[in-house]
Amino acid sequence: MTALDLHQDVSLLTAALIDINSVSDAETPIADAVEAALRELDGFEITRDGDSIVARTTAGHGERVILAGHLDTVPLPTTEGSRGTVPSSWDGAPGEGVLHGRGAVDMKGGVAVQLALAAAIGRGELTPARDVTFVFYDHEEVEATKSGLGRLVRNHPALLEGEFAILLEPTNGVVEGGCNGTSRFEVTTHGVAAHSARAWMGENAIHAVAPVLARLAAYQPKTVSVDGLDYRESLNAVLINGGTAGNVIPDRCVVEINYRFAPDKTPDDAERHVRELMDGFEVVRTDAASGARPGLTHPAAASFVAAVGGEPKPKYGWTDVARFSELGVPAVNFGPGDALLAHKDDERVDADAVRACLAALTAWLSPIA
Amino acid sequence: MTALDLHQDVSLLTAALIDINSVSDAETPIADAVEAALRELDGFEITRDGDSIVARTTAGHGERVILAGHLDTVPLPTTEGSRGTVPSSWDGAPGEGVLHGRGAVDMKGGVAVQLALAAAIGRGELTPARDVTFVFYDHEEVEATKSGLGRLVRNHPALLEGEFAILLEPTNGVVEGGCNGTSRFEVTTHGVAAHSARAWMGENAIHAVAPVLARLAAYQPKTVSVDGLDYRESLNAVLINGGTAGNVIPDRCVVEINYRFAPDKTPDDAERHVRELMDGFEVVRTDAASGARPGLTHPAAASFVAAVGGEPKPKYGWTDVARFSELGVPAVNFGPGDALLAHKDDERVDADAVRACLAALTAWLSPIA
Repeated sequence: MTALDLHQDVSLLTAALIDINSVSDAETPIADAVEAALRELDGFEITRDGDSIVARTTAGHGERVILAGHLDTVPLPTTEGSRGTVPSSWDGAPGEGVLHGRGAVDMKGGVAVQLALAAAIGRGELTPARDVTFVFYDHEEVEATKSGLGRLVRNHPALLEGEFAILLEPTNGVVEGGCNGTSRFEVTTHGVAAHSARAWMGENAIHAVAPVLARLAAYQPKTVSVDGLDYRESLNAVLINGGTAGNVIPDRCVVEINYRFAPDKTPDDAERHVRELMDGFEVVRTDAASGARPGLTHPAAASFVAAVGGEPKPKYGWTDVARFSELGVPAVNFGPGDALLAHKDDERVDADAVRACLAALTAWLSPIA
Repeated sequence: MTALDLHQDVSLLTAALIDINSVSDAETPIADAVEAALRELDGFEITRDGDSIVARTTAGHGERVILAGHLDTVPLPTTEGSRGTVPSSWDGAPGEGVLHGRGAVDMKGGVAVQLALAAAIGRGELTPARDVTFVFYDHEEVEATKSGLGRLVRNHPALLEGEFAILLEPTNGVVEGGCNGTSRFEVTTHGVAAHSARAWMGENAIHAVAPVLARLAAYQPKTVSVDGLDYRESLNAVLINGGTAGNVIPDRCVVEINYRFAPDKTPDDAERHVRELMDGFEVVRTDAASGARPGLTHPAAASFVAAVGGEPKPKYGWTDVARFSELGVPAVNFGPGDALLAHKDDERVDADAVRACLAALTAWLSPIA
């Protein structure tokens, strides 16, 4: 098992985490390393569940905050010459400049910050004014049913209680509040099959889908202000499939639509909206996940925003803040690196960005002198 | 090997042919049976090429006509309780009423008529005023490159010379002249992939296809008169496919179009027409087969139409008359059974229809008394 040194520079710790391959479904080695390193620290109550680990201080403060991050990554890049690989590599000297490797932004930089904070608490250098729960979990990059965080909610709900949660997903070091919801619909047209040499005996289901696409092409997505943040929506055909053979008039065409809706709407609101837009067509909802309101008006969130500074932004992609939101725990995203590099072959993070994130969270957690 | 009795009632001979399974690529048993039976007859020069057989009279008449039919069928039905199977079955007594089985209309009824005519010539009951070439060929129901008739054209072009050809494809006993051409095109739209949570960073290739489908839906297919027959055209999207995943803005969408064009047009004319309709879009022609003009003005064709009676009709589907047309041999379809039942699970033919077809051809081939 790789031994992790939690006390080294947090950017070097990020590199050490990248060097443990942890593509979804194969998180055990990294979970073992993280658990072993945490057990070396004083002052934590540690729970392991599958490949998830929860480490909690129990100082008896009246308030508890949660810092959460996932251990898994998307698969390694297959492109020749890509630097988003395992092991990691540096543009210059280790610990300076840019660090490349799978998970650099999504989200081993964030996990390194969590571990460095825990190490500082363990060393007695940081004595937070609130109790802290660190959550490290598996299976974030795959279907929601496999989510390690979802499993923790089912198996150990008490471990996820708190007044406020921070997800260390990459946000370029600014606070991103809440997230859009996401829903999927299938719009299906039906026709009558016939040999294409006698097309007039059939009815073309692909031709029938023309107005569906025309409405989608003409659709102007809204931007919705929620708790002071502007959420930009989007509504798109993501897949289309119709027809059975090159000489048969198609009797069925299916358009899959993905609607990313602002957190002022429930999945049912979103469905109503899509049904109105697709009036006259057969619509089936196949998937939906609620968004999360930013919740920045909550005192714990407000104090966090004040402490780290900068202008909070909305999060467009769905993240696990929505799970905390469903538990009644206000949650924001705050982590090092550019989310647009996530899942990319040239995934990378700046060493200074990781250190800046650690400094901001250290300052916020420290009691006011 | 199954021995075929060519001298029995032609509907019973049809049943015997159905009972020899001959799905494309497995025509050897039926070709062996047909060849052996033909070799029993007097008066024919016989050539075997793969699973195709050519049997020619060589009486030295100034004129030669060709009667052609394919030996293969589409696969057997898999539907429970279907009667379009091997062996065949009768609604009533054998030789009366309706005969069920794969190939009943497409086209073992027609092949039985060819063989019965050859048998009558062999027995000396029929002494045609013109020389006759019977062609039995493999691989008609599959891709054109496998066609046994195409192979005969390459290997034995002299065997396919003649003044007029009749293809015994099912036409309900009326003369169907010529055939529409067929061509296929791919219309492709391109976009820019992006995560669907940040759709504004991408460009949706499925939305971009909306005008393609709108133009197809609004298109009014023409009916074109060629040599006195009306050919009804059709132009349809037959397949559509776009998108890569439920959370990605699609960067590519492909619509496959099938244009069935009247025989007044070449494949290049057809392509020009589709390119004009799809102006502004990327169009690639992926396949094309010329149609065939009906050629009913040719004396041999005219005498045939006069002999069998009825009003000639256009053929909409592409058939091998187009191959004869390319060889400069005017050709028509004339055979027993309803083409709309071809390839169907309930494929069937009326015994009387097979006998009527045989009677019509016997009358036409017989010298005027």
